[in-house]
Amino acid sequence: MEFPFEISARDGRARTGRWSTPHGEILTPVFMPVGTQAAVKALTPAQLEELGATILLANTYHLTLRPGDEVIAEVGGLHKFMNWPKPILTDSGGYQVFSLRSIRAVDEEGVTFKSHWDGSLHRLTPEKAVAIQENLGADIIMTLDECAEPGNYEYNRAALERTHAWARRSLEAHRRPDQALFGIVQGGIFRNLREESAAFIGALGFPGNAVGGLSVGESKSETYEVLEWMDACLPADRPRYLMGVGTPADLVEGVARGMDMFDCVLPTRLARHHTAILRHGRMNLMGAAYARDPLPVDPSCACYACANFSRAYIRHLVQTREILGATLLTIHNLSILLNLVADIRAAIAGGCYHRLREEFKSDRPDATPPL
Amino acid sequence: MEFPFEISARDGRARTGRWSTPHGEILTPVFMPVGTQAAVKALTPAQLEELGATILLANTYHLTLRPGDEVIAEVGGLHKFMNWPKPILTDSGGYQVFSLRSIRAVDEEGVTFKSHWDGSLHRLTPEKAVAIQENLGADIIMTLDECAEPGNYEYNRAALERTHAWARRSLEAHRRPDQALFGIVQGGIFRNLREESAAFIGALGFPGNAVGGLSVGESKSETYEVLEWMDACLPADRPRYLMGVGTPADLVEGVARGMDMFDCVLPTRLARHHTAILRHGRMNLMGAAYARDPLPVDPSCACYACANFSRAYIRHLVQTREILGATLLTIHNLSILLNLVADIRAAIAGGCYHRLREEFKSDRPDATPPL
Repeated sequence: MEFPFEISARDGRARTGRWSTPHGEILTPVFMPVGTQAAVKALTPAQLEELGATILLANTYHLTLRPGDEVIAEVGGLHKFMNWPKPILTDSGGYQVFSLRSIRAVDEEGVTFKSHWDGSLHRLTPEKAVAIQENLGADIIMTLDECAEPGNYEYNRAALERTHAWARRSLEAHRRPDQALFGIVQGGIFRNLREESAAFIGALGFPGNAVGGLSVGESKSETYEVLEWMDACLPADRPRYLMGVGTPADLVEGVARGMDMFDCVLPTRLARHHTAILRHGRMNLMGAAYARDPLPVDPSCACYACANFSRAYIRHLVQTREILGATLLTIHNLSILLNLVADIRAAIAGGCYHRLREEFKSDRPDATPPL
Repeated sequence: MEFPFEISARDGRARTGRWSTPHGEILTPVFMPVGTQAAVKALTPAQLEELGATILLANTYHLTLRPGDEVIAEVGGLHKFMNWPKPILTDSGGYQVFSLRSIRAVDEEGVTFKSHWDGSLHRLTPEKAVAIQENLGADIIMTLDECAEPGNYEYNRAALERTHAWARRSLEAHRRPDQALFGIVQGGIFRNLREESAAFIGALGFPGNAVGGLSVGESKSETYEVLEWMDACLPADRPRYLMGVGTPADLVEGVARGMDMFDCVLPTRLARHHTAILRHGRMNLMGAAYARDPLPVDPSCACYACANFSRAYIRHLVQTREILGATLLTIHNLSILLNLVADIRAAIAGGCYHRLREEFKSDRPDATPPL
């Protein structure tokens, strides 16, 4: 395997490890900040490095539309383009195509969709998704999959067939040995579909496997149940990536069910909606209660925002729509998630993961509403 | 004098010096980035320190409305509020009140104006402007003045009488020995008014003097002419601050006429309008010509933006409205101005200021249009 993954400790089903990629080593469990358009909103790469981010996620759908994957290839690939020398993961574009509901037609071959910003028509196939991601040049790339509404059995059945056929075709199209192609398990909330999908995808021999189609409408307890099934079915010796999931409690519970990788737009998006993520709960800094509050957003946090600024100042920034408000809250929110996965790794290595999990017990399920 | 100003070298009428304030030393000539609402738009204080900024400007008008000067006083003053441990200058609020055309009434006592964001009525007097600035706690504070249209003689005559009376009252109201109160010369483009004003303000014994009412509609050659008169009239042993002026060529010409301090919103505002300031001219990064351009914005610039990112990337950021585009262009634009004043200081110290001035000859007058 070209992307060696070494599990250094286990505690229950939780595991911590080291994963080598062409652009550096990743300690797992890992949280990946999202840089949708090849930029983590409101932050410089220097600020992300200072936060301890080791891998970023970028979105193929957005980058294909603007500036175009050929442009990025021409100027030397995504790492150089966005000045991020560490690992990058790109998705296949499938999630955006299906979730933005801009689809014109889905068939066995692929999907035709309308651009959300200029209305132009585009065609995505498994082969094209791989080719685009080869142009982008991320370390980890994803197969094109179809993300169905989680509770619709018939649709999930049909989408699964396509997702499996597309996974096989993606593997055949995959060329660059410096890119790890991940398969994606679908199947909604249905046990037989999920188990069938995990067995099928797991048997294809991808260097890593992802669980897709969660956090898209089903309840937290349903998400956790799906993850229980996944742990038993997915290859244990390769990284497992739970796509798009990222409240603190979700991370803790995902890790408890054997998941290794996470991404979520929540920390960056909430920051732009004047909201701080706390280890437990949230704080809306627009609140008048903070107008004269000299405390940092989170007195237990050591990030640049909490070490240097008061709630009163950040409240002033968000009230007056200063960009710096979004920047400071993004720094804080990512810091919470990145420090949490560091704590998770230490707890697993120390054999006391149950204690950390206990801390989050009252936060779940469905304790924290989505944005 | 509590704010010792030591001129270390002169070259023609240009001078370079060291100026001590309670929050540190300032090398002059100096450019002050503008943090209107107690934040330099799109940058953290850490990024400003990395850029070598030594003093920031904040606006009393905006801070009085939001969050209110008492709030800032309560949480420990402006330096602590915005986490900027170096010198700060606040204006009196007069410029905004007069330029935003929100005035309800001007009389000998002061001015009544309407808030631009909630329509509430406010009253500003010379004494109140000092009291507000004492609450804010900047190192350098300004007297309330009346900024008239530069070409209207009668209005300038009347405004000058008020400005002079208000300057005297401001001095009487001034209490904090850790704050340097600056007087402001007005008089539009009229030589007799400007000379009368400079003589009057200069004789009041302020630790520094400012030239106001320029860059508000008159031509560049008129600005430069006013500065010629100022050099002959204003006390030579104290800092001279040319308010609101800040293209590269303007700085060079202002220094050549004995000016020491400058501020301007142009670098930060242009950055948010996808425009880079170059040492000579400007570059609009929205242009399609930059879509595949691998060069940095300014190949001769060593700032974080130019050292690490291509025009193609910054063009992508501004096209997709990523906040990072504004941040990187702000870093670059401030870097151009801050490096220019460093070059100016070195040229004066080296006795070769005429050579630097020659470099900017073709840029003036009126070569660079305002935003």
